[in-house]
Amino acid sequence: MTTSPPANPGAQPQAARQQFASDNLAGICPPALQSLLDANASGHQPAYGNDEWTQRASDMLREMFQTDCDVYFVFNGTAANSLALASMCQSYHSVLCSPVAHVETDECGGPEFFSNGSKLLVGENESPAARLGKLTPDAIEHMVTRRNDIHYPKPKVVSLTQATELGTLYSVEEVRAIAAIAKRRHLKLHMDGARFANAVAALGVHPSEITWRAGVDVLCFGGTKNGLPVGEAVVFFDRDMSQDFAWRVKQAGQLASKMRFISAPWVGMLEDDNWLRNARHANAMAQRLFRAIRELPGVQVLHEPQANAVFAQLPRRAIDSMHALGWNFYEFIAGGGCRLMCAWDTTEQTVDAFAADLATACAQAA
Amino acid sequence: MTTSPPANPGAQPQAARQQFASDNLAGICPPALQSLLDANASGHQPAYGNDEWTQRASDMLREMFQTDCDVYFVFNGTAANSLALASMCQSYHSVLCSPVAHVETDECGGPEFFSNGSKLLVGENESPAARLGKLTPDAIEHMVTRRNDIHYPKPKVVSLTQATELGTLYSVEEVRAIAAIAKRRHLKLHMDGARFANAVAALGVHPSEITWRAGVDVLCFGGTKNGLPVGEAVVFFDRDMSQDFAWRVKQAGQLASKMRFISAPWVGMLEDDNWLRNARHANAMAQRLFRAIRELPGVQVLHEPQANAVFAQLPRRAIDSMHALGWNFYEFIAGGGCRLMCAWDTTEQTVDAFAADLATACAQAA
Amino acid sequence: MTTSPPANPGAQPQAARQQFASDNLAGICPPALQSLLDANASGHQPAYGNDEWTQRASDMLREMFQTDCDVYFVFNGTAANSLALASMCQSYHSVLCSPVAHVETDECGGPEFFSNGSKLLVGENESPAARLGKLTPDAIEHMVTRRNDIHYPKPKVVSLTQATELGTLYSVEEVRAIAAIAKRRHLKLHMDGARFANAVAALGVHPSEITWRAGVDVLCFGGTKNGLPVGEAVVFFDRDMSQDFAWRVKQAGQLASKMRFISAPWVGMLEDDNWLRNARHANAMAQRLFRAIRELPGVQVLHEPQANAVFAQLPRRAIDSMHALGWNFYEFIAGGGCRLMCAWDTTEQTVDAFAADLATACAQAA
Amino acid sequence: MTTSPPANPGAQPQAARQQFASDNLAGICPPALQSLLDANASGHQPAYGNDEWTQRASDMLREMFQTDCDVYFVFNGTAANSLALASMCQSYHSVLCSPVAHVETDECGGPEFFSNGSKLLVGENESPAARLGKLTPDAIEHMVTRRNDIHYPKPKVVSLTQATELGTLYSVEEVRAIAAIAKRRHLKLHMDGARFANAVAALGVHPSEITWRAGVDVLCFGGTKNGLPVGEAVVFFDRDMSQDFAWRVKQAGQLASKMRFISAPWVGMLEDDNWLRNARHANAMAQRLFRAIRELPGVQVLHEPQANAVFAQLPRRAIDSMHALGWNFYEFIAGGGCRLMCAWDTTEQTVDAFAADLATACAQAA
Repeated sequence: MTTSPPANPGAQPQAARQQFASDNLAGICPPALQSLLDANASGHQPAYGNDEWTQRASDMLREMFQTDCDVYFVFNGTAANSLALASMCQSYHSVLCSPVAHVETDECGGPEFFSNGSKLLVGENESPAARLGKLTPDAIEHMVTRRNDIHYPKPKVVSLTQATELGTLYSVEEVRAIAAIAKRRHLKLHMDGARFANAVAALGVHPSEITWRAGVDVLCFGGTKNGLPVGEAVVFFDRDMSQDFAWRVKQAGQLASKMRFISAPWVGMLEDDNWLRNARHANAMAQRLFRAIRELPGVQVLHEPQANAVFAQLPRRAIDSMHALGWNFYEFIAGGGCRLMCAWDTTEQTVDAFAADLATACAQAA
Repeated sequence: MTTSPPANPGAQPQAARQQFASDNLAGICPPALQSLLDANASGHQPAYGNDEWTQRASDMLREMFQTDCDVYFVFNGTAANSLALASMCQSYHSVLCSPVAHVETDECGGPEFFSNGSKLLVGENESPAARLGKLTPDAIEHMVTRRNDIHYPKPKVVSLTQATELGTLYSVEEVRAIAAIAKRRHLKLHMDGARFANAVAALGVHPSEITWRAGVDVLCFGGTKNGLPVGEAVVFFDRDMSQDFAWRVKQAGQLASKMRFISAPWVGMLEDDNWLRNARHANAMAQRLFRAIRELPGVQVLHEPQANAVFAQLPRRAIDSMHALGWNFYEFIAGGGCRLMCAWDTTEQTVDAFAADLATACAQAA
Repeated sequence: MTTSPPANPGAQPQAARQQFASDNLAGICPPALQSLLDANASGHQPAYGNDEWTQRASDMLREMFQTDCDVYFVFNGTAANSLALASMCQSYHSVLCSPVAHVETDECGGPEFFSNGSKLLVGENESPAARLGKLTPDAIEHMVTRRNDIHYPKPKVVSLTQATELGTLYSVEEVRAIAAIAKRRHLKLHMDGARFANAVAALGVHPSEITWRAGVDVLCFGGTKNGLPVGEAVVFFDRDMSQDFAWRVKQAGQLASKMRFISAPWVGMLEDDNWLRNARHANAMAQRLFRAIRELPGVQVLHEPQANAVFAQLPRRAIDSMHALGWNFYEFIAGGGCRLMCAWDTTEQTVDAFAADLATACAQAA
Repeated sequence: MTTSPPANPGAQPQAARQQFASDNLAGICPPALQSLLDANASGHQPAYGNDEWTQRASDMLREMFQTDCDVYFVFNGTAANSLALASMCQSYHSVLCSPVAHVETDECGGPEFFSNGSKLLVGENESPAARLGKLTPDAIEHMVTRRNDIHYPKPKVVSLTQATELGTLYSVEEVRAIAAIAKRRHLKLHMDGARFANAVAALGVHPSEITWRAGVDVLCFGGTKNGLPVGEAVVFFDRDMSQDFAWRVKQAGQLASKMRFISAPWVGMLEDDNWLRNARHANAMAQRLFRAIRELPGVQVLHEPQANAVFAQLPRRAIDSMHALGWNFYEFIAGGGCRLMCAWDTTEQTVDAFAADLATACAQAA
């Protein structure tokens, strides 16, 4: 996207060092890649999703969720969430979410764009649950009941992120409690599952238990962060809600003509529970990192990691040292709050090397 | 996308027979695939286009076009065209195009959606050029001058498709003539280049000659139909027009997090003129097909193919016979008008087999 | 809206000469004005439609239509039609209408804007009915059946204009036939009734007979052209379709805070059948004009007027002469096709004076 | 809008008691009404703003502001603000405003709808200025600098409300300081002037001093709350920003066909400084009310009124008593915070009667 020439344009890029900036820095996991190669070897295939791979991937998701859900593959998370939300409300409705929800903070107004103006209303950020990145039934109730006039966009959808943007989890009970209030208030329930695999792996539940069996209407099931090249699945558990969704996807530029290259990697991912294996590994690496750094001087882990991220307060000078050493990670808030994200391919060596460097940096910073 | 189980869910799909339904039925060409594999082997890479592959692909496009253009990779043609058009006008403006323009007929209102309501105004369909799928300076002039009031969406953009939806080409002179009228009427000039490679290959011109040197402001350079898995390039020759386009792409759900898997295949495609080689081959196959079928009884080729498609009137019974034999192709108009599209991988054998079957079918139909 | 100073800024404008350019050049009819004055004399009134006048006007419309319809008052016809259509479809749907439909030709893309991209598909313009500005069941059937893929915006609504933009009428039977095909194809039926009063007056039917009893779902009942200062009524005969429409109106900037000044004039208009009286008068003036000019040399009336407009081919030089004499009217097509529109206040003297001037102009042009 | 019949449908509404719920409960002031009547007496007039009244009103605004500004009349404040903001940014940009800004809290997502997704970012609500409803340069600076990535909608516009939603004022110096930071950060400056007249009257400055001379680019000048029946003026001080705005207005359903009935009342309002006289009176009534109630037991005025509203904490039981007595006013926050709004026609008698009733109610509540 920039215009300056690269240092050495002809050179083959080396395998770059693993980082903790995000789980989308990792590449394609082997089984997903294998399926992509198989799909490419399958000759001419019908376009726009009428191919065998898309059929198989959709069926595998239906089997996995143990229900006859309706499945659509789109290109990325912004589109998955925005299209799902747009299908659940009209422009004059509102979506209730946490103030740290990705749909609110990091999609550049994508949900507002796709819905032609639906407003996102954010819950409070003071309660213990809110400080863990979670939306509570009370927050929802407050947003629904505080006003009841046509100058206020009518609440229509609740959006939860599972695992949350702070690496925490909604328990089955918590999802159910939210679904209950949603039902009472005639709200639909959307789940942003960019890291749904990590949540399922960490909770140790069947994927149906924290989705449709708990009252979720639509799940955006993320694949990219868990080892796919590109693509997310929008899963409608309530088929009535997916009416004409194929047209919506097409119009919004989210219908792949060579769909098999989006869907085939899902086949490899879903086979043999590879998706869960990847997620468990990433979660385990976060635990390993947590244990390795939690007692370093000046380090304050904000909460025990529940999925694949460690959120920790690090000394300013230690952050600078680590960056100088070539480690990439985000400061998500001012004042030293850092996010350390593990991926499906993060190695124990990488974790240990990072922790060792951080130990040194913290010692020097002290 | 459908719910009925496949015939044999566990079976590995066989390499399917080649078809003439569309050039998007073909898979990934070898050099593009190799680059994708190389990109995957390059370890953790920055997300959202800040990786080396995206840099290289962008630079290669700038080099190829011999100008410092601004390049964005998006997921598909609907998005490329719609985002480009939306960036060139406001909702109360109009886009002038041919009545057979893909943006008008086959994007389910995508341009209207992304632009929040810009209207597409189509030219006449009676002149010789129009019957070849082309927009003419006269048609543009008419649309611009027939009204001049605020109840009519103000013309702002001209959109050409090169090669056209009918497999024909605008010559350099024709593009220049349109650019001249566009400039005089303060219109911007967009080129839908879903099959731009086929046009360049067929015209035998440098790609700059039928784009910015002829007055084109923005090109949507198609990759998918020419051998990529997914992804098109939006090329702004006028950098002033691309201001904040990165935000537009992000908001519209067209920013790949693992961008390298979109851009790396472009590197392989652009290296060693593979893109031209693919296009030349597809064009040659269309010529071969044309020569093989043009004199069959009952067959009336609508015009000599200029790019990679043959448009021909076939006898009704021959069409049915061919479909019964398993050949897939589109009837694009009622009454037997058929489109036969060749891809980068269409083999001579496939062409010959199709022609032989068609000869038999036509003989039986006569 | 222009910046040049008026000729005489301080002068009180004189009552200007009556014209035939449009029925929206006329002012407020006496009963509507009286209600406005009464509403102003009624002291502080609740805002946003919670006032007594809005209640009365809504009730009067329900009574008039003999059904418990849902009524909303908005500011103008573009908004009424666009909001109604937007509530009847989604962005990826299409609206079927005549090629001369106001929503297609004269709202600057308003329907596309409010619906966020719904495409208007226009019927053929060759059949006898089409040449009279009417959409036919066959045209609808063709548009619904010619394609059935997701690249084509799914047909969802039929929009009729009654009286049409060419001053003609759909009979009760014609509306019913269209409603039947709409029902069979799962399409909703919208009526643009900018000149609904003229249609009812001319047809001599009860307003319910050509609306809900004939299968119309939503009517945009125009008031401005029939003697109101500002404001149209959106009437939902199917209340299920108006769910949350109040929010839509608010968000779209169509909710008057001092609503009584929009609704009160409707009370005056509806009382004592003033709306029908106004419309009958305008229709009669069109008949008078028709009879006075139809046999002038060089004049070719396109069809006998059915509502309040005469469409006629006039000699070029006669048009110029009339304009030079200060008469304003529109040439709606190139080559001398003129629209002569009569209003609720058009006097016999005006008609006669125009006809006399035209007779002279035509004699000179011959 | 409701369906239950009124108590006595045939009865002529009486002049209702004056209330403090909003300044939009009042009717049309005499000079505005006289102009409307004059406009109606002026015969046939060109439609869509090409009439003499619109010309005069526009010229009077240019004269009043002492600059060659571009003026558009639209129907209400939601539309004025939303269209102005939409013309100042694109869908992927953001608008910076106070958390109590009307555009954020009370337009049902109108700005997001008209802009197709621009996000409103709200400043902090803790500083002394913020508690008075004002946006500060520091808050703007923070919102502009805290992030600089494409996942965050790029800040493009600052929106101030003058007078604020809490009845306070930005001084000339405050507007200038905000304009300075806006200019430095390449932001445009919008002023929501629903009660601009009250601000000018209270500040005692020339209207140019707190608008274009202080750096405001676009003003939405409210007329309805100050005595018009319907209609606001969008004033572009920077004419470059109003390019094609007439088309935007038309498409968005905000172009009155009989525009004179929107613009003529402005003529009457602007003549002889009637707009200032109305505003001064409303402001004076707020002062009178403030003085009458500030020392009542249990009453805590939140801040001395600067424009035409008193914000006060009232005892719960007093609120209930007042409502039982038929007084209407809003509780704008939970727990007894009330807004008492004075209009152009609020009489001293009404203020005194309200204060007397409140005194009694507070005494009983104590």
